[in-house]
Amino acid sequence: MNSTCYQFELDLKHKKERIESHLKMRLEYADWPPQLRAAMQYSVLAGGKRLRPFLLLSVCEILGTDIACALDAACAVEFIHTFSLIHDDLPALDNDDYRRGVPTNHRVFGDALAILSGDALLAEAFVCLTYQSQLPLTVQLELVRVLALATGAHGMTAGQVLDIANIGTCSESQLLRLHQLKTGALIEAAAHMGALIGGASPSLVNAVRVYAQQLGLAFQIVDDVLDVESTQEEMGKTAGRDKLKGKTTYVDLFGVQGAHRQAEQCIKQACESLSLLGDRAVPLLVLAQSVLDRRR
Amino acid sequence: MNSTCYQFELDLKHKKERIESHLKMRLEYADWPPQLRAAMQYSVLAGGKRLRPFLLLSVCEILGTDIACALDAACAVEFIHTFSLIHDDLPALDNDDYRRGVPTNHRVFGDALAILSGDALLAEAFVCLTYQSQLPLTVQLELVRVLALATGAHGMTAGQVLDIANIGTCSESQLLRLHQLKTGALIEAAAHMGALIGGASPSLVNAVRVYAQQLGLAFQIVDDVLDVESTQEEMGKTAGRDKLKGKTTYVDLFGVQGAHRQAEQCIKQACESLSLLGDRAVPLLVLAQSVLDRRR
Repeated sequence: MNSTCYQFELDLKHKKERIESHLKMRLEYADWPPQLRAAMQYSVLAGGKRLRPFLLLSVCEILGTDIACALDAACAVEFIHTFSLIHDDLPALDNDDYRRGVPTNHRVFGDALAILSGDALLAEAFVCLTYQSQLPLTVQLELVRVLALATGAHGMTAGQVLDIANIGTCSESQLLRLHQLKTGALIEAAAHMGALIGGASPSLVNAVRVYAQQLGLAFQIVDDVLDVESTQEEMGKTAGRDKLKGKTTYVDLFGVQGAHRQAEQCIKQACESLSLLGDRAVPLLVLAQSVLDRRR
Repeated sequence: MNSTCYQFELDLKHKKERIESHLKMRLEYADWPPQLRAAMQYSVLAGGKRLRPFLLLSVCEILGTDIACALDAACAVEFIHTFSLIHDDLPALDNDDYRRGVPTNHRVFGDALAILSGDALLAEAFVCLTYQSQLPLTVQLELVRVLALATGAHGMTAGQVLDIANIGTCSESQLLRLHQLKTGALIEAAAHMGALIGGASPSLVNAVRVYAQQLGLAFQIVDDVLDVESTQEEMGKTAGRDKLKGKTTYVDLFGVQGAHRQAEQCIKQACESLSLLGDRAVPLLVLAQSVLDRRR
């Protein structure tokens, strides 16, 4: 495959359709309390880029594995991502009113149901991981371990704790650690899980993880730039809030141009890490470029 | 083994020590943000009956398996239980100030950290389940499945959703479903997991699950009675709150004496379900009796 024949937008569209229909299916249990199911569906099916499940499926596919084998893992990762958004938006945390262009979960369902629907999505992610009986047992268990580590105190939740403490001055290394945990851990886990399902060798698993770490960092830096530059309408969430809350961002540390140069540097490193994949890496290289292009 | 030689209090003391030292060990990661680790440790190590992990270890042991094989599963169940208490106590849910005789997590660490430490415990439970490499892979995966189902929208979290909607009149069958989900699902999962680790036959797994369902129900009914009768000091949490909140309880439906008779009936059924275990069932029979004795 080379970059001239790979159609990113078409691939994204197809994979998003597969992901969204699978997400929908995994949220349709008649025996769940209706209000809980509605709150879970509301946030999971509110759109979004589906970056993490798309990444997981793409890694799996370039390793020659049918993405049908990876849909439940992709779904699990998106459930974890959505749970983190619901809890992060709560009045006790970031107190955001809009997300993905619509009112946040607690604004529609109240704080109690927002907390509980986040909890339920977290647990349901691990239920999803047990639906993959076509995968080797060792891989199934490794997926549980990678996702659980990325989710809790070793990963994303630790990043959220650092984020709520990020009031005032934050050094570059502190900000890097915050984002590696809060955003990077789950993006890395998505790529890692795709590689495990695709049966990647340890060196390939490692290459894909390095790619995802840098991709995640670039994604966050671009997010900081967009937060400063965008209007609420463009972002689909309340814009400029980081500034209002006194949170240190990459723009504070490096300015808009400097932050963008850093993002470009991350994407360069991400792409270089995939050299051993040769042409097979094209979809991941194009995905990396698209993260930078979010700026325009 | 017969009931004259089994020393329940001594067994409980020994197992509690093993459980608590394991819980402590699993919460000591130097790289976790200190305030997150402190909030997790605060609630997990605040004492408590350790009913669920004790049940898990007891079931495992009467099947002839060394409880050392089951400590991580026991720890996982207790992490899930503690996460549910932390979130349940939040102002947006039950708004409780005391739990296990000390201020609730959010009263000490604030709502944000209480939400996040609950999330982290939920995720960490699944990390724990991947530390059990001495168990067959199929058992390890089945443990993930049983625990995830008991935790989320198929189990405990669904019960919490029904509980926050339990304002006004609630029928006996609605109350039964609420408690089967909110309290019963995790107690049943604990026994189920112990049986899986102990290598139980399907019929034995089933017997142990029926026992735990009835045990859980009795536990809840006794809790309702205690909530009416006890002072805050005896309960270690704010007493009489169910009444204040207008929640329907078993005492509302059957009166104190009627509720106690129901609890006795549940314990009778629990014990009968274990007939195929013969004398090996003694520790579980004594445990069941102890749930009734909480009343005095």
